[in-house]
Amino acid sequence: MKIAANSKLVMIGDSITDCDRARPIGEGRDDALGTGYVSLVDALLKTACTEPAKVSVPTANIRIINMGISGNTVRDLQARWQTDVLDLQPDWLSIMIGINDVWRQFDSPLQRERQVSLEEYGRSLTHLVATTRPHLQGLVLMTPYFIEPNPNDPMRAMMDSYGQVVREIAFANDAVFVDTQAAFDRVLADVHPMSLAWDRVHPNLTGHMILARAFLEGVGFTW
Amino acid sequence: MKIAANSKLVMIGDSITDCDRARPIGEGRDDALGTGYVSLVDALLKTACTEPAKVSVPTANIRIINMGISGNTVRDLQARWQTDVLDLQPDWLSIMIGINDVWRQFDSPLQRERQVSLEEYGRSLTHLVATTRPHLQGLVLMTPYFIEPNPNDPMRAMMDSYGQVVREIAFANDAVFVDTQAAFDRVLADVHPMSLAWDRVHPNLTGHMILARAFLEGVGFTW
Amino acid sequence: MKIAANSKLVMIGDSITDCDRARPIGEGRDDALGTGYVSLVDALLKTACTEPAKVSVPTANIRIINMGISGNTVRDLQARWQTDVLDLQPDWLSIMIGINDVWRQFDSPLQRERQVSLEEYGRSLTHLVATTRPHLQGLVLMTPYFIEPNPNDPMRAMMDSYGQVVREIAFANDAVFVDTQAAFDRVLADVHPMSLAWDRVHPNLTGHMILARAFLEGVGFTW
Amino acid sequence: MKIAANSKLVMIGDSITDCDRARPIGEGRDDALGTGYVSLVDALLKTACTEPAKVSVPTANIRIINMGISGNTVRDLQARWQTDVLDLQPDWLSIMIGINDVWRQFDSPLQRERQVSLEEYGRSLTHLVATTRPHLQGLVLMTPYFIEPNPNDPMRAMMDSYGQVVREIAFANDAVFVDTQAAFDRVLADVHPMSLAWDRVHPNLTGHMILARAFLEGVGFTW
Amino acid sequence: MKIAANSKLVMIGDSITDCDRARPIGEGRDDALGTGYVSLVDALLKTACTEPAKVSVPTANIRIINMGISGNTVRDLQARWQTDVLDLQPDWLSIMIGINDVWRQFDSPLQRERQVSLEEYGRSLTHLVATTRPHLQGLVLMTPYFIEPNPNDPMRAMMDSYGQVVREIAFANDAVFVDTQAAFDRVLADVHPMSLAWDRVHPNLTGHMILARAFLEGVGFTW
Amino acid sequence: MKIAANSKLVMIGDSITDCDRARPIGEGRDDALGTGYVSLVDALLKTACTEPAKVSVPTANIRIINMGISGNTVRDLQARWQTDVLDLQPDWLSIMIGINDVWRQFDSPLQRERQVSLEEYGRSLTHLVATTRPHLQGLVLMTPYFIEPNPNDPMRAMMDSYGQVVREIAFANDAVFVDTQAAFDRVLADVHPMSLAWDRVHPNLTGHMILARAFLEGVGFTW
Amino acid sequence: MKIAANSKLVMIGDSITDCDRARPIGEGRDDALGTGYVSLVDALLKTACTEPAKVSVPTANIRIINMGISGNTVRDLQARWQTDVLDLQPDWLSIMIGINDVWRQFDSPLQRERQVSLEEYGRSLTHLVATTRPHLQGLVLMTPYFIEPNPNDPMRAMMDSYGQVVREIAFANDAVFVDTQAAFDRVLADVHPMSLAWDRVHPNLTGHMILARAFLEGVGFTW
Amino acid sequence: MKIAANSKLVMIGDSITDCDRARPIGEGRDDALGTGYVSLVDALLKTACTEPAKVSVPTANIRIINMGISGNTVRDLQARWQTDVLDLQPDWLSIMIGINDVWRQFDSPLQRERQVSLEEYGRSLTHLVATTRPHLQGLVLMTPYFIEPNPNDPMRAMMDSYGQVVREIAFANDAVFVDTQAAFDRVLADVHPMSLAWDRVHPNLTGHMILARAFLEGVGFTW
Repeated sequence: MKIAANSKLVMIGDSITDCDRARPIGEGRDDALGTGYVSLVDALLKTACTEPAKVSVPTANIRIINMGISGNTVRDLQARWQTDVLDLQPDWLSIMIGINDVWRQFDSPLQRERQVSLEEYGRSLTHLVATTRPHLQGLVLMTPYFIEPNPNDPMRAMMDSYGQVVREIAFANDAVFVDTQAAFDRVLADVHPMSLAWDRVHPNLTGHMILARAFLEGVGFTW
Repeated sequence: MKIAANSKLVMIGDSITDCDRARPIGEGRDDALGTGYVSLVDALLKTACTEPAKVSVPTANIRIINMGISGNTVRDLQARWQTDVLDLQPDWLSIMIGINDVWRQFDSPLQRERQVSLEEYGRSLTHLVATTRPHLQGLVLMTPYFIEPNPNDPMRAMMDSYGQVVREIAFANDAVFVDTQAAFDRVLADVHPMSLAWDRVHPNLTGHMILARAFLEGVGFTW
Repeated sequence: MKIAANSKLVMIGDSITDCDRARPIGEGRDDALGTGYVSLVDALLKTACTEPAKVSVPTANIRIINMGISGNTVRDLQARWQTDVLDLQPDWLSIMIGINDVWRQFDSPLQRERQVSLEEYGRSLTHLVATTRPHLQGLVLMTPYFIEPNPNDPMRAMMDSYGQVVREIAFANDAVFVDTQAAFDRVLADVHPMSLAWDRVHPNLTGHMILARAFLEGVGFTW
Repeated sequence: MKIAANSKLVMIGDSITDCDRARPIGEGRDDALGTGYVSLVDALLKTACTEPAKVSVPTANIRIINMGISGNTVRDLQARWQTDVLDLQPDWLSIMIGINDVWRQFDSPLQRERQVSLEEYGRSLTHLVATTRPHLQGLVLMTPYFIEPNPNDPMRAMMDSYGQVVREIAFANDAVFVDTQAAFDRVLADVHPMSLAWDRVHPNLTGHMILARAFLEGVGFTW
Repeated sequence: MKIAANSKLVMIGDSITDCDRARPIGEGRDDALGTGYVSLVDALLKTACTEPAKVSVPTANIRIINMGISGNTVRDLQARWQTDVLDLQPDWLSIMIGINDVWRQFDSPLQRERQVSLEEYGRSLTHLVATTRPHLQGLVLMTPYFIEPNPNDPMRAMMDSYGQVVREIAFANDAVFVDTQAAFDRVLADVHPMSLAWDRVHPNLTGHMILARAFLEGVGFTW
Repeated sequence: MKIAANSKLVMIGDSITDCDRARPIGEGRDDALGTGYVSLVDALLKTACTEPAKVSVPTANIRIINMGISGNTVRDLQARWQTDVLDLQPDWLSIMIGINDVWRQFDSPLQRERQVSLEEYGRSLTHLVATTRPHLQGLVLMTPYFIEPNPNDPMRAMMDSYGQVVREIAFANDAVFVDTQAAFDRVLADVHPMSLAWDRVHPNLTGHMILARAFLEGVGFTW
Repeated sequence: MKIAANSKLVMIGDSITDCDRARPIGEGRDDALGTGYVSLVDALLKTACTEPAKVSVPTANIRIINMGISGNTVRDLQARWQTDVLDLQPDWLSIMIGINDVWRQFDSPLQRERQVSLEEYGRSLTHLVATTRPHLQGLVLMTPYFIEPNPNDPMRAMMDSYGQVVREIAFANDAVFVDTQAAFDRVLADVHPMSLAWDRVHPNLTGHMILARAFLEGVGFTW
Repeated sequence: MKIAANSKLVMIGDSITDCDRARPIGEGRDDALGTGYVSLVDALLKTACTEPAKVSVPTANIRIINMGISGNTVRDLQARWQTDVLDLQPDWLSIMIGINDVWRQFDSPLQRERQVSLEEYGRSLTHLVATTRPHLQGLVLMTPYFIEPNPNDPMRAMMDSYGQVVREIAFANDAVFVDTQAAFDRVLADVHPMSLAWDRVHPNLTGHMILARAFLEGVGFTW
């Protein structure tokens, strides 16, 4: 398990991360972590304490803060990076961004000012990671995804190119790389996208469990 | 224009037809016809009266009743056929059914009793049409559709096979055949499904206008 | 078709234009364009792309922004002209204003400070048009209307005089002139106002389709 | 004053009478009489008791029951006559019906089964009055109205013909005749319909006060 | 009739005046004047125009603005006098205040800072009237009241002493004096307070009609 | 303390007893006993268990069921006596009824069928008590009350006569007699009714505590 | 993994199972399985299909139906056993009942008819299991629990005795036995009950994950 | 009775004190004092005036202001001490704080910045009391509590240590000391915590009556 005991882990992203988390800081009792993969990661880590023999490090005291905001692109992350990441002084940071950067090019093709090009995406994410990495014990970079098995679908194809950028930034910055698209692709070999998400973006609980599991495997947690 | 003046037209179907129409009978002031293609067909026909020189028959006095119910399959239509179609004594009838028959096989693959197979679909629709056609002046059969350009997508492929059944029943029963899938395909040549419907099933206003236009072309109405 | 491909069209006005559009900018997914004639214009233009052979220019990529606000008079337009029109840098602009300028003189006869006289109306609209026209590729001026067939009704008579001012400004400024009153009058030859609008001002969907059609004919769009 | 002390007066009609009265019986504290002319009649009668010298009979103890139901035609009155009039054993009865009988012919011209023709209207009202009059001390018949000053407006013209029927029935049955249309016409000589009712049917408080005053003058009450 | 045609009349007071009037200025369509005596005064004046022969001056064009605020004492009036009275430049002004000044001494006996003594009440009201009267064509002073027939009830007795102050200020300032307590007392000779107001303060519609009538008699209006 | 340990006590009455108790049976967690004197009696009895030395019998296990219903008269009690009292098989029963029997004669003087005369009140209550008393270990009869110190107020005077009937029935049936009017009168010697209840009927918490205390003194409970 | 592919698994119980599941049958899209351990079990099984190499049998096609109802005791299960279990013809059945059977003895000690004694609990559960087991491929019996580490707490002690009954019935009927109390006890060694459930009964997501994990371990599922 | 007639008593604390009191100042009619022990103390004091012979001083005119705020720790009290205590110029002050100071250490163990240690608690409370005591006629210090009978429960044990600090500060500052934990412990000898509070913190009405009684005994009030 890569995350040390007593670490503070901030997870930032868009609606997939947000899932109705508490405001302004996504931490606390009840549904403060939202109802998505962040809360599942938290619950799975905390449950593990029940059998210390099975885990290499105690994970129940890892402190998780959800800072996702629905609709965000990497441009929005940049605008709130100081208050929503740096000021929280995390030990570990997890970023999953890019779905809206791509999506706006397909559902709002005429509103070009709301879209984030591949070039801007790569440049901005590189900048955020480069300036933040030195202050962190660890960093997790999760790709954006599109729950669409057809690689020739234009939105899927573009999403893959954004995911490739994430992969490159991860390796260049000693970050844990989590390929969420690959995790979904494994499931899509068996089921149709309709059984995971009506819009192929916002998954049901099974889809969030896939994300949580991909994250946990990335950081070396075994249940 | 095929529909005669002063005709009563009943339009039945699923959520695409329903769109929050009035209960129990979808007719009257305000939003009684719902907010989908049925109300657009009605508005376009009534508007046409403004320029009588341009239309072969007066269309403003065609009476439209929306009897769609969200979630319906052809099995549900059968159960309410007497009260919701025959008792209303329509001159013309329009049917668009089949999306849910197919969809349940993909979003609820384990609940097999909620699914309607191709065989049952064809048999039931044939029965409804055969027993009703003699009482009608005219019948319109609209195919189900899936706003997915990839013909190899399993749900699209299956939807096409259901649409083929509609085509056959239409020709065998002297019905107007409206190929809604073809109407969407023409638009999908230019735009991504995301700009028409997040779930590729429930369209935005542009999508409903496509349906209304396809219907009106089918019955020979030119604006 | 007068509006060139890839144009940005801002449509401003009162409640007839507004129809619950998104705030602060009336553009985007779902019902961002409201539920009135603006959204119908948008849907009809976008639908047209399905049959390129029938249209002289591609219209699906015309970008429409709804900036109507319920209750507005031309005095209100003036107050928000910089932020709500000029800052958006439209290629084309459509204005439909005047109904409330007249209406307040009849439903609130004692509150004279809420009324806009014919003289002020003409002066203000002339000023707005004169200073804005040079920055536009094209301008559409739509008359206000009153869905009342009796020309001797005092509110109808006054509305006609405001519409006459619009006509004069349109011709003096090389603008497309859309006579919405005439469009309604054609329908009123056949039906009573009650079938279009309970208050003879806010039309139902048929009435909005009449407006959309009048606008589209004005700009040379044929379906 | 024609209504004797301690009388029970039932007032029946459509939405103009209803005005959110209590169900199932429109009598009691708070807004049980609704917010329209019925409650104003009640308040004016009860207020009068303050100056006994000015009134010929004490009116404060006249008991009023509001049995109006929104949307009703004379056909609806017939269906509930036993429970909503006869079972209440009124001393006096007031009827104002006919607006919807006419209105449906203009706002829903295609739904002919919802309309009540002049012939049916006259026949039904005659029957109700003839069978009920013998059980009453007094009867008040109020005409329907349309707040439209143009006598050539088709809906106004038709409403006048229904009002003429009421007049004839009143005189044939020794009933107090209240010409509500004439009461509104006097006001319309000075103001536009828009200052009384946006839809020319449902009046504001001034309009209801006109109705209350017309009723009270009819029964000989002087404030 | 003392109020001249085309006058602007501002009516200020507490919850009896307020009755859910529009904010910030109590004027306009619908229920902008609230549901109490102010709206009844307005409706009775406007109705009167129907029979010009009966009224000495036309009253339909008197403009009424309701500036009551629930819970107010004379101390609260003082704090908002500039914006809520003087800035509106009324021709006529009506004031009914004092109920809460007294009431707080009985329902909140321990919160002495919320109570307004007789001395402060007289001093403040005198000041407001003296400085405002010169700018007015006419002034109406209405007493506070308590719908309690027992003159020995301590709250009734104290209310009477506040009303006496109003009477003195009225006569000293050439104001129309309206004795609302006397108006209620005439009704209370016949009925129990429970039939007018559950709390003996906030009357039902009959009670508000009593207030409207007392006001109109004060200004010389005869229906 | 007269009520034995482990007794079941049903308390029935009108809105003063009801206070939003649970339906259909007023017993259970949270606010099942309502927010009035019944819940205070329950809390005071249960609290007493903390100091067993001070109480003659343990009172914490007395089971209380609230069966009050707002608006009830003794006529309503009669109609639900079997299900709401007898079927619950109480050991002790408490009845407080009569306020509405009197009140309707003052706030709804014209609706005579809703009023319960003194004669009917006495007859009905006598019948209920006589047939039920043999099945009970103990019975508490609480008078109705009116929080009005003036004995000449007609409603107070009538309420006293109903309370006198309760007293007589109590003594004739070996019941505990609780004079709630006397309990309020003691407080009214010091404060105005306005500090206890705006309508002189529905008390605030202080008023309910007065009722609870009167009840507990009646059954011999000392805190 | 004990549950075979394509099995139908019904899970029944109280509020811990219910968690706002769909009615009347807890199966379908969105939150039909509720937000508790049942949905977590479902998501974990479905996720597992992503790595077929790691699981002995495919688990993604196990069909789960949630039939929990808040507040239920074993007595309530008995009353709905035919419709809610037998009629659904499950292959596997899971039962977790008993918390309310015990709880009512502590939070509602006086309402004895709502409590289920240990004797009745054992007898009823034995009967249900004995008559149902023959129709099942497999049965899972989960103990009730109380998130209280103090074994001498009376409610914990009683809960343990009910859990012991479950254990005995499980062994006598070849059922999978899931000791939920033991699962919670392992966590309680490290954290206070307050971090899992404010009332020590209804757990947060971590608590539900503990239950899901205990269930899955019982049926031999390894992630 | 220690509190003199006509005193002003401010009661400050957390959610146990708050109970939905009015904002910003918790005083006035209706539920301004909230629905907890503060309102019970007020009602019991005011009721006592009914029998002056039984009380040493009149208590009905003691003025109570509730300044509790849910979730507060002593750190929060410090931040609002000037506006919420000193500015109100109380004669007597009551403080019950500490539950959240302790609770956050158990339900949110990882959010250490939200927790208040015993050292900080003692230091802050000592400071507040020391600087305020000289301005008061009297001070009441109530301990925090945990409705848990097991003295070895870690949260109960920690709560006892905070209560011990309160005791010491009380004796050092001539304050009335109210041991709420002891008051609850007496009840817990007979009943399980579940019958007083589901979360062992927020009590039902019985629990609030225990607190009210403990307070009143502390200040020498005998009913």
